[in-house]
Amino acid sequence: METSINEYFSRRRTVRRYSAKPVDAALVRNLLALAAHAPNTGNMQLYSAVVTSSPEMKRLLAPAHFNQPQVEGAAHVVTFCADYRRYSLWCEESGTDPGCDNFQSFMAAVIDTCLFAQQFNTLAEMDGLGCCYLGTTTYNAEEIGQLLSLPELVVPVTTITVGWPDGEAPESDRLSPDAIIMDEKYQDFSGEDIKAIYSYKESLAENHRFVEENGKKNLAQVYAEVRYPRTSAKIFSEKYLAYVRKQGFAI
Amino acid sequence: METSINEYFSRRRTVRRYSAKPVDAALVRNLLALAAHAPNTGNMQLYSAVVTSSPEMKRLLAPAHFNQPQVEGAAHVVTFCADYRRYSLWCEESGTDPGCDNFQSFMAAVIDTCLFAQQFNTLAEMDGLGCCYLGTTTYNAEEIGQLLSLPELVVPVTTITVGWPDGEAPESDRLSPDAIIMDEKYQDFSGEDIKAIYSYKESLAENHRFVEENGKKNLAQVYAEVRYPRTSAKIFSEKYLAYVRKQGFAI
Repeated sequence: METSINEYFSRRRTVRRYSAKPVDAALVRNLLALAAHAPNTGNMQLYSAVVTSSPEMKRLLAPAHFNQPQVEGAAHVVTFCADYRRYSLWCEESGTDPGCDNFQSFMAAVIDTCLFAQQFNTLAEMDGLGCCYLGTTTYNAEEIGQLLSLPELVVPVTTITVGWPDGEAPESDRLSPDAIIMDEKYQDFSGEDIKAIYSYKESLAENHRFVEENGKKNLAQVYAEVRYPRTSAKIFSEKYLAYVRKQGFAI
Repeated sequence: METSINEYFSRRRTVRRYSAKPVDAALVRNLLALAAHAPNTGNMQLYSAVVTSSPEMKRLLAPAHFNQPQVEGAAHVVTFCADYRRYSLWCEESGTDPGCDNFQSFMAAVIDTCLFAQQFNTLAEMDGLGCCYLGTTTYNAEEIGQLLSLPELVVPVTTITVGWPDGEAPESDRLSPDAIIMDEKYQDFSGEDIKAIYSYKESLAENHRFVEENGKKNLAQVYAEVRYPRTSAKIFSEKYLAYVRKQGFAI
C-alpha cells in the first residue's frame, strides 16, 4: 500500500476537463461524509458543503466563477462554506451566547472548512475522480451565497468541481522542498536564493509561452500584472471583507 | 486498497500522547515534500512549514500553545505559515509589484496553507504517526512568529504536533452527514433539527462529564462559556488581526 499511496500523492494533478459519464450523487455524499472525519476545531465542525448537481444551478453558478468551463463541465460542484450557523443555533437553543461574530471564529471556521475540503479532494482523487479547486469562490462569495441561500454566519471559502477525468491532465511543477521547509527558524531568502528557487519554473516551455503571449519580460510579471494584479486584489478584498462582515463576522 | 483507505479515513483520530521513540527528521521532511503536491492557488505555493525539533525550541514554543503537553511531548512540531515572502521577493527581483498586501491574498495563502497542512496530516497518519492540530496558533501568532523569526508577509495559521502514538487515542464523534451536506441550496435548521443534530453528541458519557465538571446546564454552555467564550475570542481576534496587519496584510 505504502508505495502506491506515495505514488498517488506525488503524482496527483488538478483535473479541469471531465467526461460526460455521470458521477453518482451518492458517491459524492459518501466521500463528503468520510471527509468529515478530518480534524477540526474542538469538534465543532464549523463547515457545510453545498452540492450543486442540476444543470440549471451549475449554469447560474458559472458567472460567479468567471465562467470557467469546469463549473458547467463537472458532474457536481461542491461549495465549501465556513459555517457558524448550526453551532450558533445550538447555543441559542441551549440558552447561551455563541460569541462567534469575530475574526478568530471566522479563521477557525475557514481552517476547518479547508481541512474538510482537502480531505474530500484526496478521497475523490483516490477514487479516480478528477477535482479542481476554484479560487474564484472568495472573489464572488456574495453572488454564490445568494444563489445557494446561505444564511447569516455562513461564508463560501472554496469550491471543488468533480467529475470523471477526460484524458490525462498535465502534472504541475513544484518548488524544491528546500524552499518551503525550514528547520527551527525561518531562513530568509537572498536574491540568489530566489533566482535558484524559481529558475526551474521559469525554464518550463509552458511558462515561456505565457510570458510571450502576455508580452511580458518574465513569469513573475505574468503573475503580478496579468493573473493577480494589485487592482483586482484590492477590489475583491473589499468585496469579500464586506460580505464576511454582512454575514456576521466583525473583522 | 479501497477498503483499507476508507477504513483509515473513517477511523482516523487525533493523537495527543506520543511515545519516546524518535521520529526521523528525514521522514517528516519527506512527508512535507509529498504534501506540497496538494492543490494550491495558481501554483504559487503560498506557504512554508517551520519544523521545530530541538527540545529547547519546543520548550520556548510551548507557552504560545498554552503549554499543551503535546508540544513538548511530540517529536516534531510543524508550524504551517501563510507565506507571501518568497513570492513577493520573486516579483521584486523580477521588477514587478507583488500587490499582495490585502485580504484576498491573505485568504489565498491561508487556504493554500491549510490544504498543505491537511495533506501532511493525512500522509503522516497513513504512515502510522500520530498528529494533533493546535488551534492556539492563531491565538499567539505573534509570539510564535518572533520565536521562528518569521519575516514580513509570513503568518502562522496552524500547527501540527507529530510523534509515534502512545497507546490508542479515542475516536471522536461526528455530526450526521445530513447536518453538513446540502443539496443545491442551504437547508436552514429549525429548533427541532438542531436538537436532533446535537442529541447524540450531548448523550455521550464524556460530554455529560464535561457539563457536570464545569457546573453548566448543557454542553453548548461548556463550549460557549468555558472553551470558546466571547471575551477570549474578542481579545484573540484583535491580537491576530493586529499581527496579520503588522506582517503586511492590510485587512
